Amino acid sequence: MSNETKPYAIGIDMGGTNTDIGLVDRDGHCLARKNLPMCRYTEIGAYVADVAAAIHQLVADRNLTFSEIAGAGIGAPNGNFFTGCIEHASNLVFTGVVPLAKLLGEQLPVPVALTNDANAAALGEKVYGGAREMDDFIVITLGTGVGSGIFADGKLVYGHDGFGGEVGHTILHPGGRLCTCGRRGCLEEYTSARGIVQNYNDLCKEMGVEPHEGADCQWLSEAADRGDETAIRTWVITAEHLGIGIANAATTLAPEAIFLMGGIIQAGHWLFDPLRIAFNEHLLCMQRDKIAILPTQLNANDAAILGAAALVQL
Amino acid sequence: MSNETKPYAIGIDMGGTNTDIGLVDRDGHCLARKNLPMCRYTEIGAYVADVAAAIHQLVADRNLTFSEIAGAGIGAPNGNFFTGCIEHASNLVFTGVVPLAKLLGEQLPVPVALTNDANAAALGEKVYGGAREMDDFIVITLGTGVGSGIFADGKLVYGHDGFGGEVGHTILHPGGRLCTCGRRGCLEEYTSARGIVQNYNDLCKEMGVEPHEGADCQWLSEAADRGDETAIRTWVITAEHLGIGIANAATTLAPEAIFLMGGIIQAGHWLFDPLRIAFNEHLLCMQRDKIAILPTQLNANDAAILGAAALVQL
Repeated sequence: MSNETKPYAIGIDMGGTNTDIGLVDRDGHCLARKNLPMCRYTEIGAYVADVAAAIHQLVADRNLTFSEIAGAGIGAPNGNFFTGCIEHASNLVFTGVVPLAKLLGEQLPVPVALTNDANAAALGEKVYGGAREMDDFIVITLGTGVGSGIFADGKLVYGHDGFGGEVGHTILHPGGRLCTCGRRGCLEEYTSARGIVQNYNDLCKEMGVEPHEGADCQWLSEAADRGDETAIRTWVITAEHLGIGIANAATTLAPEAIFLMGGIIQAGHWLFDPLRIAFNEHLLCMQRDKIAILPTQLNANDAAILGAAALVQL
Repeated sequence: MSNETKPYAIGIDMGGTNTDIGLVDRDGHCLARKNLPMCRYTEIGAYVADVAAAIHQLVADRNLTFSEIAGAGIGAPNGNFFTGCIEHASNLVFTGVVPLAKLLGEQLPVPVALTNDANAAALGEKVYGGAREMDDFIVITLGTGVGSGIFADGKLVYGHDGFGGEVGHTILHPGGRLCTCGRRGCLEEYTSARGIVQNYNDLCKEMGVEPHEGADCQWLSEAADRGDETAIRTWVITAEHLGIGIANAATTLAPEAIFLMGGIIQAGHWLFDPLRIAFNEHLLCMQRDKIAILPTQLNANDAAILGAAALVQL
């Protein structure tokens, strides 16, 4: 059986808190999954052994053999597709350069590939989601950070060193807010979960009102539903920042659509309506109203596993 | 003879003032050329007839036959590769949508292709210039406007509609200077010929000195050579703007190199030295000092013709 016709793949979503491992079919259904809490691990050997054991278990539980599995794909923070290594991820206990694809490959009879989580998200949208028929699109992940995965002419843009697609760290406001990356004014500082709360706090200060204690994106979304003007305006301000940032990516790449993913998109129309306006205002006239802004078509619970699985099932 | 082995190509550089037509060999030498002043033409039929006649003449003058010519490539303002049309170019007398590739193809026995001038510049760098061994690079053209052509994984990025690669119209300063495109804060307004003069005038105002009457980029370059502090600082300020703009493109695309082209690069080290500093300051740490900033390796006189010829000789 060639890889392209094998009916299943393993997707591994490695995060700072958990690793989720799923068995995925070609239609993008996650048939079974296992979870490994990261707090169990201090060294990579034990972690790799447990990931491999969980995969063997998932395959055995369904009475499958590895001849039916296309491979195992890993989506990991700072994962480099070209080297198969995690490189200096700040939110993992495994420091430095970790050759995870090689280590896991030694314990599995199928190919193992690795990329970063935002690239995996774009692959998932292409293989299982709303971009199946598209060659040129961008996926933006909005969460703790802001990541992106870019498809140009049917292929993921890795760049010459595997680090392509960092739209979240393009500079939106030169000299602006200090970013966790050490530079100032990155898109991420205005449109990530913490950036949006900062937008809210800044707005409250400007309006001379006391901010809601512990306000987060979920609260801002619910407050907007209740008609809270400050919350509604926070989403408009966030949409303006995000609209310029993704308009710049669209001006550079001329995609057919931009998909948004991550918990923040649960704000729904509070975010999407002003975003579509701001985005189109900041496009060149020849691109205006031609590029769709869409929520991901992947199920939120499975998206990261599907993206990782897509890496070996494209 | 397959197209890939045909030894010659025709390159057509169509501008607002002149059309330059050249016969190019596979090593990137422009062997002969003709020039058509655009003031002669008010309608497209006469123009196409003269371009075709000039090409027939170039081929006949060298005792060649069209069986040795790979084709004719056109670099034109607002040229769309996908449609072969010039679409609403503001600096040409031919208004609306002009199907130039089709019209010229009807008068030549070889394939005709068309793209915009900045994409042609990137193709020229790939086929004949400094990017022959590169798969991921960006060419920035600095002149009356700021254009760009992007290669990702060995292919020119056209985007879904042929309008990819408009880095000059990414928004650098939200709400900033009014651009000719109708929006505010585009990179072009800070790094084109007029943008650089504006940087100089703004700096003179800030310093309370009288600006030099008729100052242009050539004067600013010569004044810097003479030790004029205001001119030197103008280049540093320009480099800061351009550094952020191209760092954003590099953060998105992770190219191996960025090539600069156009008359402005004659400022030499006054531009390139502060540009390399500003560019690296605005990159993510993992990309710092890994991406080269280089002047084009194409001869300035022939670059546009070579780029157009590359379209049919890639």
